[in-house]
Amino acid sequence: MRRFVVLGHEAPTTAEFSLEDLPGAGRLDALCRCVTSAFCLSHAIRENVRVELVLADSYTVRFEGSELRRLNPDERSTAALVRNALENREGAIGAMEANPSPGVYISRRDGETTIREAADRGTVLTLHEDGDPAIDVDPPNDPVFVLSDHREFTDAETELLGAVSDRRLSVGPEVLHADHAIVVAHNWLDTAGFSRY
Amino acid sequence: MRRFVVLGHEAPTTAEFSLEDLPGAGRLDALCRCVTSAFCLSHAIRENVRVELVLADSYTVRFEGSELRRLNPDERSTAALVRNALENREGAIGAMEANPSPGVYISRRDGETTIREAADRGTVLTLHEDGDPAIDVDPPNDPVFVLSDHREFTDAETELLGAVSDRRLSVGPEVLHADHAIVVAHNWLDTAGFSRY
Repeated sequence: MRRFVVLGHEAPTTAEFSLEDLPGAGRLDALCRCVTSAFCLSHAIRENVRVELVLADSYTVRFEGSELRRLNPDERSTAALVRNALENREGAIGAMEANPSPGVYISRRDGETTIREAADRGTVLTLHEDGDPAIDVDPPNDPVFVLSDHREFTDAETELLGAVSDRRLSVGPEVLHADHAIVVAHNWLDTAGFSRY
Repeated sequence: MRRFVVLGHEAPTTAEFSLEDLPGAGRLDALCRCVTSAFCLSHAIRENVRVELVLADSYTVRFEGSELRRLNPDERSTAALVRNALENREGAIGAMEANPSPGVYISRRDGETTIREAADRGTVLTLHEDGDPAIDVDPPNDPVFVLSDHREFTDAETELLGAVSDRRLSVGPEVLHADHAIVVAHNWLDTAGFSRY
């Protein structure tokens, strides 16, 4: 399975935001593009993918590719799924998730809990401009990518990632938006085995 | 320069559409993501890029990276730039473009005219699942990528691309949305020179 954990530092934690202004809703537009970049192929959903959006270090919304229905590639409809999850956040009690729509879960997990759980089950690859060129690296079986929204990782997040990360990887010389980095990470995994000759 | 020509077969040709329903506006959401994928780096605009959106084979909206101001990464604000261009479409007379906002031009060019002009000035690379693996190909100096929205190329477009295309390129085994293909194409160009060893 391919997993992407995306930290939305300013993301909303209630459903009280407007679908007409996603950038104003803590840059929810960027988080929604991360979801669609992770799942959407031209005419299919990538089923073997999990995305976890961490909202302001308070809630984690988990998307399961194998269960998702009605995921469209535009930002607004994806934001509506997040809003619906937040409307049902009271159903998430303790470690128990609520499951307000097919393939969408919400829990009261903070970033550290979500990252540590992912690290226990997969190989954490941190994207970093000083990392090993991806082309030189053989992909692991269960890669976990941890990404940040428009903000840098906090010091605490950087420290945690340093502790749980198996490798730092560079996908190229340009610093990309998280949703674009997800597209490139998928392509790296898709084309593993492609050779130059 | 890197050029991307995106054919929006059902795109609007007037400003009479709602920013609240971009998928319903001929899938303008997909075209807007192509624009932001082509230009947006994490904290910068790719200046050496041109994107031409062909709207329903009637108008071409040209975005110039070196001149663009106020391009945000979300779909809605990019759609507002397209709508503003369409509001000023009467200023495009004959072959003359109108320039309704910095770096955004609109003309009455159809797809064939736009593709042929691009082909005259660059090397047309068609993305195709049966093409040469990108990793085996050295990028040309002035690559031109022609992409289609959610619909397949028409027979006429396929024939034209067969005539003007210098090479068919595969970026991987999965068929991607056009905006994701643009991200991967950029990464291919960005990392040219990266080696396995």
